[in-house]
Amino acid sequence: MPSPLDVDRLRERVQGVLDAFVAEQRDVLARVSDDLEPLVDALSDLLRGGKRLRPAFCWWGYRGAGGPDDDAALRAAAALEFLQACALIHDDVMDGSDTRRGMPSAHHRFANIHRGAEWRGSPEDFGMGAAILLGDLCLSWADELLLTSGMPPQAIDAAKRTYDEMRTELMAGQYLDLLEQARGGGSVERAMRVVRFKSAKYTIERPLHLGARLAGADDSVLETYSGYGLPLGEAFQLRDDVLGVFGDPAETGKPAGDDLREGKRTVLVATALARATPAQADLIRQRLGDPGLDADGVAMLREIIADTGALDHAENLITELTDQALAALAAVDLVEPTPQILTDLAFAATRRST
Amino acid sequence: MPSPLDVDRLRERVQGVLDAFVAEQRDVLARVSDDLEPLVDALSDLLRGGKRLRPAFCWWGYRGAGGPDDDAALRAAAALEFLQACALIHDDVMDGSDTRRGMPSAHHRFANIHRGAEWRGSPEDFGMGAAILLGDLCLSWADELLLTSGMPPQAIDAAKRTYDEMRTELMAGQYLDLLEQARGGGSVERAMRVVRFKSAKYTIERPLHLGARLAGADDSVLETYSGYGLPLGEAFQLRDDVLGVFGDPAETGKPAGDDLREGKRTVLVATALARATPAQADLIRQRLGDPGLDADGVAMLREIIADTGALDHAENLITELTDQALAALAAVDLVEPTPQILTDLAFAATRRST
Repeated sequence: MPSPLDVDRLRERVQGVLDAFVAEQRDVLARVSDDLEPLVDALSDLLRGGKRLRPAFCWWGYRGAGGPDDDAALRAAAALEFLQACALIHDDVMDGSDTRRGMPSAHHRFANIHRGAEWRGSPEDFGMGAAILLGDLCLSWADELLLTSGMPPQAIDAAKRTYDEMRTELMAGQYLDLLEQARGGGSVERAMRVVRFKSAKYTIERPLHLGARLAGADDSVLETYSGYGLPLGEAFQLRDDVLGVFGDPAETGKPAGDDLREGKRTVLVATALARATPAQADLIRQRLGDPGLDADGVAMLREIIADTGALDHAENLITELTDQALAALAAVDLVEPTPQILTDLAFAATRRST
Repeated sequence: MPSPLDVDRLRERVQGVLDAFVAEQRDVLARVSDDLEPLVDALSDLLRGGKRLRPAFCWWGYRGAGGPDDDAALRAAAALEFLQACALIHDDVMDGSDTRRGMPSAHHRFANIHRGAEWRGSPEDFGMGAAILLGDLCLSWADELLLTSGMPPQAIDAAKRTYDEMRTELMAGQYLDLLEQARGGGSVERAMRVVRFKSAKYTIERPLHLGARLAGADDSVLETYSGYGLPLGEAFQLRDDVLGVFGDPAETGKPAGDDLREGKRTVLVATALARATPAQADLIRQRLGDPGLDADGVAMLREIIADTGALDHAENLITELTDQALAALAAVDLVEPTPQILTDLAFAATRRST
């Protein structure tokens, strides 16, 4: 059983890279002004949490394509955590989410600083502004870390092109998600398109591709990774949808039924709507996205989603997609221990509790 | 008189690069979904305006350091316009500005789309979300264009490090600005620090440095450019402060006295406060930042600012700083026609009307 150890060890090594890079940037900012310290503190706290899925997929994509264990490649993989930090910080501003990883979200944190200092103007506006800028810093630092990782120029050049596609797809997926919420949701198909770009490609397929490019791999390796990464990424997002509705707050770090209160138009919800009786569909439309939704309201919506068969359907789909991902993995020869670890990551990313 | 022609010609060439790059990205996004078109349209409209100051300083910094006329270098210089687009779009969200370059700001434009389509939820929230994401795309596309400009790897590598510093300084400066507004302004010195990082370095010094690095120049050329760029950048921002209070709406593209209504804590305002009588200072504090400030209120605040001598002081400082910049330029040998063009740009950036 070498792989759980490998996974934990990698997480620690990634944390080491993040800490060192943040410390460098703390110095850069301190040379401008001490007033910038709260930005670095907020980021530093945020970066202490998280599963490091994207660096992990990038790293094992690199190792599986024959890349040697190497600190430069590790730095390149860790860069994805800054992209993710930008996505989380900006996402929380857009959603108005007050918590993230069990702590106040960045905009909420800066609003609190404003309130505590009794400054002028709106604490919320200050919090939003600071969070937008902190996200921009993270987005900037992501490519800075990738490009100064110490990998050979040719590897960097190939990886940067994949990284460019990945970023554009991420922002595009997030806009489509926003649009989907505004339009009040639509077909299961349209919801799946959001999942594909916002989650499947961004969380799994593209990090694997990035790793492959860092190792100098050719297109055939990237195709293998797509065969594994796309279905697994969809399964991962479906699991997230299910946890957002049925998850235990102690495990998700979010209030029970938070996605229902936010009115998230997920594949799970689209499936429930497609299968609901007219009366059930009316109830979903009335209560979904109600900020005042209480425990009874959450229980009622959960019951409808289960009753329509949407929950079972999602669970079956998660199993099916995960199997599909594992079959793609079994069909090719990747360098050990990547096959075992990608198998473990597939289960970890899609299991019922976080 | 070759230089005005050179300046116009450069602006056209930059526009050509921007149009071509946006067209490429339009294709990338169209492969994801037709629904992404409004993002590209908004950017395309925004990029039609503007003075292209940063690409211009980068280009002439490159030419002045001996770089040959070259389309790859032009692409690298034009990349700065995407960074600027990100800064403008995110800035407008943070300030709640409804207009930009005489058109609706990005968040306002997307709120209007939401309203027109009668979608669910708040048009303002949708507009904000779309604008944050569009800014993120611009920030991403800036380094994508720089890195794929076609310049030799060594030049790119040196330029990217300067670009990294520039981005971090920009975000830092914007946060300090936000903080300054929240604290209700302070000393002239603190306001000048914001100017230095948010404007002087970002608009002039760093673009020149970037150009120098693209040409493979050493540190001595960068020092020359700092001697010119920093004072000129401060003068440029002071001119912007003066125009924000006293400018003609027909020329600034913003309502008269808009900075007063927004309550911007500029060097001009800090100077006025430092020189005001207690009664004048009270009036400034009461009315500055009042969203309902009418024409009479604007006229009153203008009168106080002029009366304290802050306006004359700003005009004198602009002249002094511009002279200082030109003296630094005269002391060194740069490759022609850069000295003439940097002289012209100094006047263009600081003249009384836009």
